[in-house]
Amino acid sequence: MSTFGTLFRVTTYGESHCASVGAIIDGCPPGLELSAKDIQIQLSRRRPGQSDLTTPRDEKDLVQLQSGLEMGVTLGTPIGLLVKNEDQRPHDYSETDLYPRPSHADWTYLEKYGIKASSGGGRSSARETIGRVAAGAIAEKYLKLAYGIEIVAFVSSVGKIHLPSTALPSLTPGNLDEEDDTAQDALSKDFVNLLSTITREDVDKYLTRCPHPETSEKMTQRILRAKSAHDSIGGTVTCVIRNVPSGLGEPVFDKFEASLAHAMLSIPATKAFEVGSGFKGTEVPGSQHNDPFVRDDSGRLRTTTNWSGGIQGGITNGEHIYFRIGFKSPATISQAQETAQYDGTPGSLATRGRHDPCVVPRAVPIVEAMAAIVVMDQLLIQNSRKTAASLLPPITTLPPTMVIPKKGE
Amino acid sequence: MSTFGTLFRVTTYGESHCASVGAIIDGCPPGLELSAKDIQIQLSRRRPGQSDLTTPRDEKDLVQLQSGLEMGVTLGTPIGLLVKNEDQRPHDYSETDLYPRPSHADWTYLEKYGIKASSGGGRSSARETIGRVAAGAIAEKYLKLAYGIEIVAFVSSVGKIHLPSTALPSLTPGNLDEEDDTAQDALSKDFVNLLSTITREDVDKYLTRCPHPETSEKMTQRILRAKSAHDSIGGTVTCVIRNVPSGLGEPVFDKFEASLAHAMLSIPATKAFEVGSGFKGTEVPGSQHNDPFVRDDSGRLRTTTNWSGGIQGGITNGEHIYFRIGFKSPATISQAQETAQYDGTPGSLATRGRHDPCVVPRAVPIVEAMAAIVVMDQLLIQNSRKTAASLLPPITTLPPTMVIPKKGE
Amino acid sequence: MSTFGTLFRVTTYGESHCASVGAIIDGCPPGLELSAKDIQIQLSRRRPGQSDLTTPRDEKDLVQLQSGLEMGVTLGTPIGLLVKNEDQRPHDYSETDLYPRPSHADWTYLEKYGIKASSGGGRSSARETIGRVAAGAIAEKYLKLAYGIEIVAFVSSVGKIHLPSTALPSLTPGNLDEEDDTAQDALSKDFVNLLSTITREDVDKYLTRCPHPETSEKMTQRILRAKSAHDSIGGTVTCVIRNVPSGLGEPVFDKFEASLAHAMLSIPATKAFEVGSGFKGTEVPGSQHNDPFVRDDSGRLRTTTNWSGGIQGGITNGEHIYFRIGFKSPATISQAQETAQYDGTPGSLATRGRHDPCVVPRAVPIVEAMAAIVVMDQLLIQNSRKTAASLLPPITTLPPTMVIPKKGE
Amino acid sequence: MSTFGTLFRVTTYGESHCASVGAIIDGCPPGLELSAKDIQIQLSRRRPGQSDLTTPRDEKDLVQLQSGLEMGVTLGTPIGLLVKNEDQRPHDYSETDLYPRPSHADWTYLEKYGIKASSGGGRSSARETIGRVAAGAIAEKYLKLAYGIEIVAFVSSVGKIHLPSTALPSLTPGNLDEEDDTAQDALSKDFVNLLSTITREDVDKYLTRCPHPETSEKMTQRILRAKSAHDSIGGTVTCVIRNVPSGLGEPVFDKFEASLAHAMLSIPATKAFEVGSGFKGTEVPGSQHNDPFVRDDSGRLRTTTNWSGGIQGGITNGEHIYFRIGFKSPATISQAQETAQYDGTPGSLATRGRHDPCVVPRAVPIVEAMAAIVVMDQLLIQNSRKTAASLLPPITTLPPTMVIPKKGE
Repeated sequence: MSTFGTLFRVTTYGESHCASVGAIIDGCPPGLELSAKDIQIQLSRRRPGQSDLTTPRDEKDLVQLQSGLEMGVTLGTPIGLLVKNEDQRPHDYSETDLYPRPSHADWTYLEKYGIKASSGGGRSSARETIGRVAAGAIAEKYLKLAYGIEIVAFVSSVGKIHLPSTALPSLTPGNLDEEDDTAQDALSKDFVNLLSTITREDVDKYLTRCPHPETSEKMTQRILRAKSAHDSIGGTVTCVIRNVPSGLGEPVFDKFEASLAHAMLSIPATKAFEVGSGFKGTEVPGSQHNDPFVRDDSGRLRTTTNWSGGIQGGITNGEHIYFRIGFKSPATISQAQETAQYDGTPGSLATRGRHDPCVVPRAVPIVEAMAAIVVMDQLLIQNSRKTAASLLPPITTLPPTMVIPKKGE
Repeated sequence: MSTFGTLFRVTTYGESHCASVGAIIDGCPPGLELSAKDIQIQLSRRRPGQSDLTTPRDEKDLVQLQSGLEMGVTLGTPIGLLVKNEDQRPHDYSETDLYPRPSHADWTYLEKYGIKASSGGGRSSARETIGRVAAGAIAEKYLKLAYGIEIVAFVSSVGKIHLPSTALPSLTPGNLDEEDDTAQDALSKDFVNLLSTITREDVDKYLTRCPHPETSEKMTQRILRAKSAHDSIGGTVTCVIRNVPSGLGEPVFDKFEASLAHAMLSIPATKAFEVGSGFKGTEVPGSQHNDPFVRDDSGRLRTTTNWSGGIQGGITNGEHIYFRIGFKSPATISQAQETAQYDGTPGSLATRGRHDPCVVPRAVPIVEAMAAIVVMDQLLIQNSRKTAASLLPPITTLPPTMVIPKKGE
Repeated sequence: MSTFGTLFRVTTYGESHCASVGAIIDGCPPGLELSAKDIQIQLSRRRPGQSDLTTPRDEKDLVQLQSGLEMGVTLGTPIGLLVKNEDQRPHDYSETDLYPRPSHADWTYLEKYGIKASSGGGRSSARETIGRVAAGAIAEKYLKLAYGIEIVAFVSSVGKIHLPSTALPSLTPGNLDEEDDTAQDALSKDFVNLLSTITREDVDKYLTRCPHPETSEKMTQRILRAKSAHDSIGGTVTCVIRNVPSGLGEPVFDKFEASLAHAMLSIPATKAFEVGSGFKGTEVPGSQHNDPFVRDDSGRLRTTTNWSGGIQGGITNGEHIYFRIGFKSPATISQAQETAQYDGTPGSLATRGRHDPCVVPRAVPIVEAMAAIVVMDQLLIQNSRKTAASLLPPITTLPPTMVIPKKGE
Repeated sequence: MSTFGTLFRVTTYGESHCASVGAIIDGCPPGLELSAKDIQIQLSRRRPGQSDLTTPRDEKDLVQLQSGLEMGVTLGTPIGLLVKNEDQRPHDYSETDLYPRPSHADWTYLEKYGIKASSGGGRSSARETIGRVAAGAIAEKYLKLAYGIEIVAFVSSVGKIHLPSTALPSLTPGNLDEEDDTAQDALSKDFVNLLSTITREDVDKYLTRCPHPETSEKMTQRILRAKSAHDSIGGTVTCVIRNVPSGLGEPVFDKFEASLAHAMLSIPATKAFEVGSGFKGTEVPGSQHNDPFVRDDSGRLRTTTNWSGGIQGGITNGEHIYFRIGFKSPATISQAQETAQYDGTPGSLATRGRHDPCVVPRAVPIVEAMAAIVVMDQLLIQNSRKTAASLLPPITTLPPTMVIPKKGE
């Protein structure tokens, strides 16, 4: 359905050519100072038409807050918001009256509903993500103020062009040796450093949103090559969440990484997700892959490495959470494709109209938004449990190794 | 929380050393012939102690059906079931009274709850998956009878040993050329053929559950090498679902792949998920990656390729659904590890007791179970919509390209 | 939270003095012809300012459909809609800056959120019900077209003025005899007849919405008496739902009457709910209260009486569903009240501004809306089950008394 | 479905003649000392066979805790529990193979599922409530320890025999005067006193669970009269919840009274619910019905009266919450009833076997349990919000009348 979350709950509406797209955000804590500008910043980062690398559709995407706020402060009640669809031009898509676009949602929406929007894929439009980005911006504002949580996503690959520090170890020839357990370098020092320090300002210096000058330049060329060929290309986005408290994530079905995967795979065009060491980590023996504990200066346990990506047993451990999402090449291309019409007649489809040759630069704020929503919801649930437990009398009957003493005991 | 699903809803309980583990399965259609044997088959495939490759803990795991059935037929009411914990031996784990096992759930559970089970990770125990497997077996029985749906998972890698047909294209040197768009072979003919024909019988011929004799033999050696080194090793499981009707999956947050990712990442030790062409598909231009439509003999649209993995725009298209899950190396190893105690004291931990050197062979039925639960739940939701729509008068006001005619019109 | 329903899901936003109030209706079946007019009819019936009997606040309340429709047909995707708040006048309420209105939500909202809207009770405003009424109108359109379901509510009492046929038996002196089991007349013939035949047109002939000329006239006088005394008065609304299929309602926690009670008690100012014979039925012995079965002309079982109110064991039986809701006297009155300020200072509050002396006439379409939403949601859930069961092979192993044969067997 | 609650979530299974009935309670705070005895006390109060007034079916109903606890302390993980069905005797009910019992669930279950348990109404059995009572006992233990919350229910009427202090004002002749606004006495001093002081010990002194000697004696006679006539009789249960913090209840759909009504109407045989002044309150003008505020000794606002029943605007205000539930006369009676068989053949049914002539005494602990579950769930949700809000910086931009200052400001 169109609702995500348990206590921080986001519900969205809107197709690409209807009157507006919007969302209701329920469960935002009361007393948060919030303005349209807080939301607009991320909406503008998501907006198309920012460069040659994205679609020229320019809608301005100005958010209109409807409820849940008074004098710039949240009331704790649902925040209704919407963004008008100004640039609709439905006629651009007339070929798609006859042809379902290959690998697009046109045909599956028709199979699902027995009816389809004239624009084709209905809710599968990238425009649907506006509501998510707005909701994420609200969550993020809270998380930053209350916990100092920072969420930064960036483009880690376009086609075969990978940001070196995040590249698969298998790209290094040494890793092709099946017997060699020692050559793993999934968490290069460069990558660890990047995760600790990267900011949105760093990311936004590059139209590609890949924070590495040479790689970014290569990616630009790769995208322009796709564009000039009336083709498209995919890529990956990597995201880090810093300063998340330990203890978030609900065993067993709503483990932190399960909720994160759900959120990320709900973004249009995603096909893959990995957290921490991910697929490559499956090749590393436990003795190397385990993250040993150590006491930090404040007396608290930390891990010396972070192959786990900040999550162990489905629960956050306070280290950086990082994950990577794969976005396929956009399905809508203007190159002619041999395919069939809805009625089965074979033919050739060359889709006119605007389309992105590569979505990953614009996907960056969407990934950040969904990450913020997941953290927010899991935080609210865990806050409830901790508060409830804190009101009970001290436990006196268990061996000390089984409990954390309550504050003040 | 411990509940998964909307209309087909699975709720589980149980730690590794309590009286029993169990589940309540709500929403099973009435009138399904079902016996304990239907469930036991998959529980036994999940059971440890089947070979040198898995832990010797042998609990028999006999399921006891409590409710929801009469004379071998489901009533439509909740099915309660449980499996007793016979072999508990909590004392094996006494080192872990002092040490949180690195990369295990011991410490994060303590952080979450302020208290932990004496066995350590509580619900993060693999034993928790018994309820899922039982629920999945029930879903599967229905899906097979009502739709002919087949779900088969198999081990596709152990460490660096990959089933050749599923191996990453990047392992082929030709794929290292960033400018070469044409060398992709993500969906080799062998792989396509494997997905179409593989059965559980094929899979169970091998202790590794990798249905390829030479690869299986190499995997066995890899696992035994880990075992003799008191170490562990990870791997991947690939799963195919055949004969799923088109139209399943709920835009926008509960896309089919989002629910699938949620389900899979909720399995202990998982770190990665990809569907269809996955991460490697992100490197393939749209013109190659799109799946063209063609009319089949029955007049229905099909796709000539299946990079999409049976899902487009978050909705199934009737083609095979296939996906891959990455399992990290088990955290519990008996090799000594330098780490810290709960109180921060540095030291060396060598965990005694039984543990799997590699979980992927046993993970196969768990993956199948979670896949069945997702399909079942999405089917029930879509069935509701289709039935509701079928009761409305024919739509007369829309252009014919926007609708599928109702049967009989 | 602000979401109601499982498959037909309504989420609302909006306070009384923000930019707009609105809703997202998710799960509407695709292919339903729907226009703003379908919704406007019920919104206008809910609207204040229709007569001397209700508040003069006139906002016109024009619904603006945002999404989920194309060319007047639903797409199956979420329907976003909103109604602007045109008449806001927040300054009318300045006394309430100092005083929490007795029995209003001012103080409890402040206790809940630590902050309150300047208008006082925030979401407790009657204006919040606009989203419900709109959602209900959509559900109702579907239910009428697909099942011929009719929902009619009417005012059954104002203060002590009761519509005679629905009056408590205890008002008849004969019923005061504790030993007399036979004098019950809870379901008078007049009442049964009313439930079977009443229409909205009948109801709307009277400003009070009580479809009985003399009683309506008495009620009018009672309301005007409250108005002239700067006081308020409560009342009850009775509602009947006709032509609901048997089999709706989910054991055990979501019994049909439980969902109905939840829906009705979520309407502002409600304090009581009863279904079928209700409280008075508790005084009737089982031998009189049971509804005997009889075969009707079509060969189907019906009941000869309907004390059950169309629900048995939490599941609809196909008879008329009828229930009654109690609305308290509105808390906001302009008569002076001795009470205390937020800071505890005693004082006298005489609230200025517009307020209804009696809400029950305007509550009628709200009750109908919530009833429609409950029926719709339960129908979709049961449709899913029936469709799922119908795809299974016939059951051959059960005694014939335990099953309904499938069609065609 | 069979799950209730958002953060404190109860899922039950079990029919009357299967192997066991049970529940999974998810979301119990960790660190609560809990034993089987805590649960058994309420199960035993619910148990049949305690006197002539209830059915002789004696099952002992010993609870078996399966998980979620170690050394008598909750772990925060799901608590699985079950009670065996020892006394099954399904053959007693053989008449019901042919006849659906009038006003029972036999026929509606068959309509819903197309199949029915041999015992008839399946999950509509009173035995299903065991899981609720167990879950409620756990919630109650927490609420008592952490907040001093007390929940006491008692029988307020059997047939026409009413506990005088809770009797309808309309039973007093003076109240029959429609013009007389002043004669209301809904909240007699006796009743207010009863609500403030009553304990379970007081209630359990009487087999009827009506804490008033003369009324209890009359009720006993009334029930025995029903029993000897092979008939049954209904009644009401009143419940008070003391010491609930202010601020509980979620606008708009999950208002406190809406959740309470949902919970109560999900109990078998219930037909009516009212909170605070309820139906009779609808007859009282606002000027009398409003509860004025006053500052108490601690400086906190309280109300001088409590017609609201502790809930205003859907949110608790800290006063006693009280409500009343109507239970119909049990449908299963051994007196002959003229009715029809499943196939429509007219005939006479005299049900053999055990059945309660009156359920209200046994309903008392079930009402308490559902009340505890509702409070617990709403508390956990509100705790989450309060904790989240407390972490934000102080609000400086709002007028002081709009906020409660944070502690320490």
